[in-house]
Amino acid sequence: MSDVTSLALPHIAKLHAYTPGLQPSESGWTKLNTNECPYAPSPKVAEALVREIGEDGASLRLYPNPKSSPLRAAIALHHGEGLTADNVCVGNGSDDILNLLIRAFCTQDAAAGYTVPSYSLYPVLVEIQDGATNVIELDRSMRLPLDRIAASKARAFFLTSPNAPTGVAFANADLERVLASFRGLFVVDEAYAPFAKENAVPLLAKYPNLVVVRTLSKAYALAGIRVGYALAHPDIIGVLDRIRDSYNVNRLSQAAALAALGDNAYYSGVVARIKATRDRGVRAFAARGWFTYESQSNFIFTEPKNARGETGPAVAKAAYDYLFAHKVLVRHFPSHALTTSFLRITVGTDDEMLVLSETLDAWLKTTNA
Amino acid sequence: MSDVTSLALPHIAKLHAYTPGLQPSESGWTKLNTNECPYAPSPKVAEALVREIGEDGASLRLYPNPKSSPLRAAIALHHGEGLTADNVCVGNGSDDILNLLIRAFCTQDAAAGYTVPSYSLYPVLVEIQDGATNVIELDRSMRLPLDRIAASKARAFFLTSPNAPTGVAFANADLERVLASFRGLFVVDEAYAPFAKENAVPLLAKYPNLVVVRTLSKAYALAGIRVGYALAHPDIIGVLDRIRDSYNVNRLSQAAALAALGDNAYYSGVVARIKATRDRGVRAFAARGWFTYESQSNFIFTEPKNARGETGPAVAKAAYDYLFAHKVLVRHFPSHALTTSFLRITVGTDDEMLVLSETLDAWLKTTNA
Repeated sequence: MSDVTSLALPHIAKLHAYTPGLQPSESGWTKLNTNECPYAPSPKVAEALVREIGEDGASLRLYPNPKSSPLRAAIALHHGEGLTADNVCVGNGSDDILNLLIRAFCTQDAAAGYTVPSYSLYPVLVEIQDGATNVIELDRSMRLPLDRIAASKARAFFLTSPNAPTGVAFANADLERVLASFRGLFVVDEAYAPFAKENAVPLLAKYPNLVVVRTLSKAYALAGIRVGYALAHPDIIGVLDRIRDSYNVNRLSQAAALAALGDNAYYSGVVARIKATRDRGVRAFAARGWFTYESQSNFIFTEPKNARGETGPAVAKAAYDYLFAHKVLVRHFPSHALTTSFLRITVGTDDEMLVLSETLDAWLKTTNA
Repeated sequence: MSDVTSLALPHIAKLHAYTPGLQPSESGWTKLNTNECPYAPSPKVAEALVREIGEDGASLRLYPNPKSSPLRAAIALHHGEGLTADNVCVGNGSDDILNLLIRAFCTQDAAAGYTVPSYSLYPVLVEIQDGATNVIELDRSMRLPLDRIAASKARAFFLTSPNAPTGVAFANADLERVLASFRGLFVVDEAYAPFAKENAVPLLAKYPNLVVVRTLSKAYALAGIRVGYALAHPDIIGVLDRIRDSYNVNRLSQAAALAALGDNAYYSGVVARIKATRDRGVRAFAARGWFTYESQSNFIFTEPKNARGETGPAVAKAAYDYLFAHKVLVRHFPSHALTTSFLRITVGTDDEMLVLSETLDAWLKTTNA
């Protein structure tokens, strides 16, 4: 550790950074590793951006709307359920929102709770905050241990639903069983909710300690612009607003997000296509005899079986490596027993899924598989 | 305090949010309040953005380059002085960088030092962190108390140079006198350095505990895209990278910043025009008999004198209110004795400065002035 590194706070000097999925800069990859949308965003997005930029980009010299106010109003309108702009905080991606929630609610004696597996950013955000964690281990059923969550002493509990990297969704009836007795902040991280059968937004009116987090990175095909948001009681929104950066969402991202939320017809079509491809994909893996969770997200979590019918961490790694060598990028999470035998595969176009399938067929014909 | 607010950490529940300058959404204002550039960004910026958006915005479906790698390389090249991409971390505005520095280096027993007056965001960031502060009060001379800073026990000292809201710059010779003995992190926040006679970048090679912070919001006319950066020893950059959001700078902002840094000729012209208008403005206030600091920034800090020759907080407030009522927006900082009798006026176009001057003339003819 160099002299200058030793100036950093001890917990910062030793922490483990979050590892994002690979973002190759060269072309030629079948990129099924970071749950991006395989289709372009609504054409209204490019139109709105070109309009905001104008002839000479002159509007860019001015700071953005500090509260993203028009966007908050549009988000509230989009969800309905009696929500108003006062129920919305917009972030520089939903990771910004998650970070603000950890910062405002969690510390050494106010633990952040989450299930394992779930979104692997939570423990990193808690480490940055030097906070305590309250970890609820799932089992292979991936069902939610409702009583253990309800009884947890977490100041804030983060539930990814549909869950990552499994794609398994949790029913509102289950969330309400937790909310009936849990007194901390209950954060439902719904990055993948547009692909699910139900979502927690209708519960907001009933539970002031419920926060729903959304992103435009997945279903809205806008990972590149970084917009996410929280829906919650106005008092919780007020807390987030006091600690977020005054200008956390830039002008172009605000314009793009507004345009996207104004084109429900386009995105209904995109989501329907992805769900159809996903469901065919899940059936195809089942037909291979690979254990695959029912997915309510835009990815598939499947347990590869090699030519000898074996599963396990080495098999998953071998499949990952073969796909990688053939420029098909998926994700492998070797750090946990419940995930290490699996691959997480983003639902791409039908053509991309065909490339994946054919590459897996080729792998199964190799001598090592 | 509602039930849900009481779930927030105590220091968060009671903290004072940063107050950004007004961003009126209607037109018709002469906007001289947030130190934006009065000229459009380089035409290469709009070109690069339209190219990145493409026909249908398809690239926006993908996450941005997580490290803003091409931009880091361009920033290093832009500054020269032997810097490489390893000396650069890019943020969602320089406020993102300042927040990361406070988070990584400051806490209750590792104080954040800063002068008063200086950028009023520092105490807010320390409050969010529940950290300790080490405040060095300046006097009306606005000279830097070198020995007090050098002897301060701050873990990280934040120096705004040129200073805000005064516009007074600190010489490299003075910075080196501090750096000769100060062993904490020395952060020189150079948001306004392109308008100054010198800057601290050439000192980086000599002092591993020096951090220089820059922004594209002022001289580069890109407040709307939110890009700032830190220049420092690779070990400090490594610390920032471990705690920043993986995708903190979106695709369009990276493209815009790259294009801007590629057009030095355009921006040399913009900066020269602003400096010429500024220097005429400073002389004009002096000619009114108003005490005005020498400015090395893109704003002017002046002490209004009313028709009876009086100065003071009430006079500054009256001038501010008159300007506001006539749709000329400047900034008044009533919270400190050294700033409350002054107005901070962003250098606009010559036409905007004429509107300001004529409105002040009209104020001086009113019976209350």
